[in-house]
Amino acid sequence: MTINIDQANQKAIDAIFEARPTLIGVARAKDVIPGMDDNLFLHAGPPCTWDRMSGPVRGGMIGAMFLEGRAKSVEEAETLLASGEIKFAPCNNHSSSGPMAGIISPSMLVYIVENKSNGQRAFSGLNEGRGKVLRMGAYSEEVIDRMIWLNEVLGPAVDRALKEMGGLDIRTLLAKALHMGDDGHNRLDAASLLYTNLLSPYIIKTTDDPKITSEVIKFLGENALAVLNPVMAGCKLMAEAGHGIEGSTIVTVMGRNGTDWGIRVSGLGDQWFTAPSPKVKALYFPGFGDDDACPDIGDSVIIETAGLGGFAMATAPALVTFIGGTPRDAINTTLDMYEITLAEHKHFNIPFLDFRGTPTGIDIRKVVETNMPPRVNTGVAHKDPGVGQVGAGVVSAPMKCFEDALVAFAEKYDI
Amino acid sequence: MTINIDQANQKAIDAIFEARPTLIGVARAKDVIPGMDDNLFLHAGPPCTWDRMSGPVRGGMIGAMFLEGRAKSVEEAETLLASGEIKFAPCNNHSSSGPMAGIISPSMLVYIVENKSNGQRAFSGLNEGRGKVLRMGAYSEEVIDRMIWLNEVLGPAVDRALKEMGGLDIRTLLAKALHMGDDGHNRLDAASLLYTNLLSPYIIKTTDDPKITSEVIKFLGENALAVLNPVMAGCKLMAEAGHGIEGSTIVTVMGRNGTDWGIRVSGLGDQWFTAPSPKVKALYFPGFGDDDACPDIGDSVIIETAGLGGFAMATAPALVTFIGGTPRDAINTTLDMYEITLAEHKHFNIPFLDFRGTPTGIDIRKVVETNMPPRVNTGVAHKDPGVGQVGAGVVSAPMKCFEDALVAFAEKYDI
Repeated sequence: MTINIDQANQKAIDAIFEARPTLIGVARAKDVIPGMDDNLFLHAGPPCTWDRMSGPVRGGMIGAMFLEGRAKSVEEAETLLASGEIKFAPCNNHSSSGPMAGIISPSMLVYIVENKSNGQRAFSGLNEGRGKVLRMGAYSEEVIDRMIWLNEVLGPAVDRALKEMGGLDIRTLLAKALHMGDDGHNRLDAASLLYTNLLSPYIIKTTDDPKITSEVIKFLGENALAVLNPVMAGCKLMAEAGHGIEGSTIVTVMGRNGTDWGIRVSGLGDQWFTAPSPKVKALYFPGFGDDDACPDIGDSVIIETAGLGGFAMATAPALVTFIGGTPRDAINTTLDMYEITLAEHKHFNIPFLDFRGTPTGIDIRKVVETNMPPRVNTGVAHKDPGVGQVGAGVVSAPMKCFEDALVAFAEKYDI
Repeated sequence: MTINIDQANQKAIDAIFEARPTLIGVARAKDVIPGMDDNLFLHAGPPCTWDRMSGPVRGGMIGAMFLEGRAKSVEEAETLLASGEIKFAPCNNHSSSGPMAGIISPSMLVYIVENKSNGQRAFSGLNEGRGKVLRMGAYSEEVIDRMIWLNEVLGPAVDRALKEMGGLDIRTLLAKALHMGDDGHNRLDAASLLYTNLLSPYIIKTTDDPKITSEVIKFLGENALAVLNPVMAGCKLMAEAGHGIEGSTIVTVMGRNGTDWGIRVSGLGDQWFTAPSPKVKALYFPGFGDDDACPDIGDSVIIETAGLGGFAMATAPALVTFIGGTPRDAINTTLDMYEITLAEHKHFNIPFLDFRGTPTGIDIRKVVETNMPPRVNTGVAHKDPGVGQVGAGVVSAPMKCFEDALVAFAEKYDI
């Protein structure tokens, strides 16, 4: 087979830049996610069996059993989860993206984001805020009650607002937020404010009860990660636009489940290339340390895959107060990522680097040649089920994923 | 008289850093501003008589006559304004701060900001947004209608919300906004979002009609300068906290009225030191140029006086898209301002400069010694009444103000 890798990559990059992810609504997972059914439970990262699942994913699954009314105790939940009746699959295999444990269960509400340039859709749950939350593996009554409230109150209110306003352009929102000190991943303070501000007038217009309106807007406005999930689904669509192009060496999915790290490559179909998930170099919350941390976890690294997050850290120096390091480290991270990417983003740019576009389109060849893995901003969950977030920090992807992918690429294309 | 300038300045700086301006409500100007009466109309900058007033101030005064029901035509308004019946005074002489033309007329609603550290209050009008607005000298029907709506609908709604929430801390808001790419003067995108987000749940809670709630929140949320006026009153209080200290060489007021530039100095009482107002180096809106521009105008330079705006430009590189120049210029402006100030702000810092505090406390001695005038981010109004904003840019204060003040200081203190 004769392939022109440069041409293939250019085609992928063009499609990535053309993508226009737009948040259009909120709906029940089993009604909208392709292949979803009552016994299918999605999680972050590459595929994983129950016996190998990390603490936060197990904790999230237990919480999901409670939420779905399938179990009343941890023991009951664990028995059912291990029974074989419940099936597990990566969010990414079902056009979805889940932060941290990334659990999506059939009756959870999910955001629907649509790429207006090609009609593709992606899905992501509703954000619970920071701390003791299901996506970090917590499942106490307070956690489940919040999930129910998101499902019954916040989700429907946001859905009505989105329909009334005719959708919300995620790419424009992110471009603005980058000029306001967000990296688009670990720091979404500005994006979440923009999101809440855009929605508020429409939530008010379409929700009858001012008490509910006030509660919903307060919850969104106080949650600096309110927009994380739509952003992830948006980044998923941008990266996905460049997927499946014969001969392209661009990474189109990265994800971790706390056990394994995995990537997919545009020209290599839906195969995952995995390696054990590393520990995060983290700044811990008071009372926690390295021994408490689950290895790196979550689909949110789709944000780096789309050219933001760690790749855009130079525009978010205030983030170092949350994840450690200095502003100079933040700038250097972005500068390094130009070495392993194919393009500078057409729509996302960094004022401090003279409005240079963010490094976008990870090339598995460049990663291997330079021996420089993608760097990621991320949260850190406790290693045990039932606890929650313990810190935040930076992590490098394991080189093995990229090395294995490059070998597979050489084999497939007979190079 | 024996004075210890360093000690006096330290006392001033301490008071400036201790100031905790808090937005507590909205009320009618003549009910709250000291010395206000039905025939007193406030304007920006140093004192000015009707015959010397710049176009935007004249335009704003004409608009205020319409708003107050004192005139029905431009001619009628001008006759009354020139008659001697109407008195004029600087906002700064009445504990107030007015952007651009800075008109405050007796029945306008104004924000009330209180310094929780010493009980002082300052006042500023309600922000109309960008473009064709009264503060830029416009007075068409659309402009007056908007002023009436601010007075009758938005102002009361915001007042109810502020009382319900128990006030809003301006210093904390500004500190956050600096980490989100705002300079605190020309770029208040983040601060205005934060402001709207903090107010929204309380506006919803205290306003019965959801149509009004939605309109008010949409207007605030879409106005990137929504919080400019409370910020100015807050900066006024911070600077004012350092005013009136015997022997202090710190500048505590700067202001311009489109005719004159003026400053006040802590140790020199309420005397204004003035010079002709210079032209702004501006990026003009399409269709406008240098010939259309009014010389520098507005009290918003109180923001630089308090250590923000041009002084904090290094944290707001995206601003150059609006005012011209490069991100490097933005950084250099901040670095230069350290040369003429006495301290690094205790509460406002710049992530990109390794979280260094913003340059604060302009010392008239340093300005004269280095021959480096304060640099200011500002909007530009059309020189004629009735037009509005034509651009935005940067301007340096006239050296004469500082030279004259230093001479007066030497005379007063017999140095």
